[in-house]
Amino acid sequence: MQIGLIGLGKMGGNMSRRLTENGHTVVGFDPNQAARDTAREYGVQTVASRDELVSHLEKVIIWLMIPSEYVDKELEQLLAIVPAGAIIIDGGNSDFRLTKQRAELCKSHSVTLVDVGTSGGILGYKQGYAMMIGGEQAAVESLHPIFETLAPKDGWAWFGQPGSGHYVKMVHNAIEYGAMQAYTEGYRLLKEGPYADIDLASAGNVWQHGSIIQSLLNDVAQQALAENPKLEGIDGYVHESGEAKWALEVADEHHVQMPVILESLKVRKDSQNGNINFATKLLAAMRNKFGGHAINKEQ
Amino acid sequence: MQIGLIGLGKMGGNMSRRLTENGHTVVGFDPNQAARDTAREYGVQTVASRDELVSHLEKVIIWLMIPSEYVDKELEQLLAIVPAGAIIIDGGNSDFRLTKQRAELCKSHSVTLVDVGTSGGILGYKQGYAMMIGGEQAAVESLHPIFETLAPKDGWAWFGQPGSGHYVKMVHNAIEYGAMQAYTEGYRLLKEGPYADIDLASAGNVWQHGSIIQSLLNDVAQQALAENPKLEGIDGYVHESGEAKWALEVADEHHVQMPVILESLKVRKDSQNGNINFATKLLAAMRNKFGGHAINKEQ
Repeated sequence: MQIGLIGLGKMGGNMSRRLTENGHTVVGFDPNQAARDTAREYGVQTVASRDELVSHLEKVIIWLMIPSEYVDKELEQLLAIVPAGAIIIDGGNSDFRLTKQRAELCKSHSVTLVDVGTSGGILGYKQGYAMMIGGEQAAVESLHPIFETLAPKDGWAWFGQPGSGHYVKMVHNAIEYGAMQAYTEGYRLLKEGPYADIDLASAGNVWQHGSIIQSLLNDVAQQALAENPKLEGIDGYVHESGEAKWALEVADEHHVQMPVILESLKVRKDSQNGNINFATKLLAAMRNKFGGHAINKEQ
Repeated sequence: MQIGLIGLGKMGGNMSRRLTENGHTVVGFDPNQAARDTAREYGVQTVASRDELVSHLEKVIIWLMIPSEYVDKELEQLLAIVPAGAIIIDGGNSDFRLTKQRAELCKSHSVTLVDVGTSGGILGYKQGYAMMIGGEQAAVESLHPIFETLAPKDGWAWFGQPGSGHYVKMVHNAIEYGAMQAYTEGYRLLKEGPYADIDLASAGNVWQHGSIIQSLLNDVAQQALAENPKLEGIDGYVHESGEAKWALEVADEHHVQMPVILESLKVRKDSQNGNINFATKLLAAMRNKFGGHAINKEQ
């Protein structure tokens, strides 16, 4: 099917590529000329403005793959030009509480907002993206061909009300924080404990083959350690993107204790204040490997 | 090759089965008659005493797959009857600090102790067991055919000095505590948060297909939730087997902070004092699923 896509960066660019390579028509816009040029190589019909994007679409369906801080501004611009009946998809990591409000705003313009929490990072182009979907059923159903292409088999589900997709993705990311932290604490202990000569990548490799802690996160950690055993050149500053903080706020409201997720967020915040060590370096290396995130603060 | 195996329970029984089905000869002993009877069905030559076990072995190589609290007693009995040159393998979850001492004790009897941290639980019979190995190189090399059969491809490695296998396994289990806790906190928030109708098993299924948190632990959690969405009939008491506690002791000695692993241990201890909730119920359900551990306190 035909779909508009705004935001042709790391995520949006690869997603548009996966769509065009599977027979969909993607009309793409990004304010950045270089991002548009790359997308054109992927078979995307690029346009130079939002107006042009809307005019190219038979049915106005626009997927936003932009940083969450730009979503309000983007919606404002789009709601001024899209026709009634349009569908806008927010595929980024928006706060589900804002998504609920934005869905109401869109509705007042007779536009449907669908929220899609998207996981998979830079591995997603090949493996497919896991997609957690919220929003009105009819709109979601009309997007099935898109989800079936972007996600691997069984890799997408609709959770109901507006915001529920971003909510499930927020919880997903909070789990990610806690699980990553568990692995990095363990690897640090392997490195700095009583056996000085343990090969960390070798341990990670065994854990990846037949052990109960085998996981994509461990795979990424193992690769990072195999390539750079001492994690040289990594300053150990770890970014936090907000979801764990939001999850803890919601958990508090609902009297749900999340001590591990709380501690994992603290470690990231502390790293930003200079409390860095082998574990925070490994966190940064893992984020770089699966998400293409900057490995150092200054980048 | 031929190997003796003491302890034909959940783990040892399945391991002996995997060995016999792949052409090895297993001479097995367990004080429990029923365990011996089951092992015999797997093709194990069972014997009724340790003396008989030793007399049946051409080269005395004995794998112990017994609870760690019985290892000292078992070694005492074996060291009285095995010849010089024997190899004893401790495949259980022993404290690596005790393993180091026990290796010295064995050495004074001209016996080699090899330590093998074994992961895989009840899934291991089919998938193979991840094996983390410590001890003298020559003895370890003589056991390669056994490791190659028990472990999946790339699923075993030797880490060097006596105790290093159990050490890597201890760190593995500590990671397991932290990662499991992260998942269960997330699932609890999904269940008790603002969206009452989220299908937890469906979320877990999406996470398992294309998301960065896909893992064997999540697979197990997802299965448990699909089969019993409200986790009915589970009291939420969670056992802790010692490794996370040992890891925290070692971490403290070496000035390594492990806040997430610390919190995950606290949650288990608190559960034993009645602080139970959906997350601790899910922990118990997961342990039951991958390890065959009792799901309730009274079992």
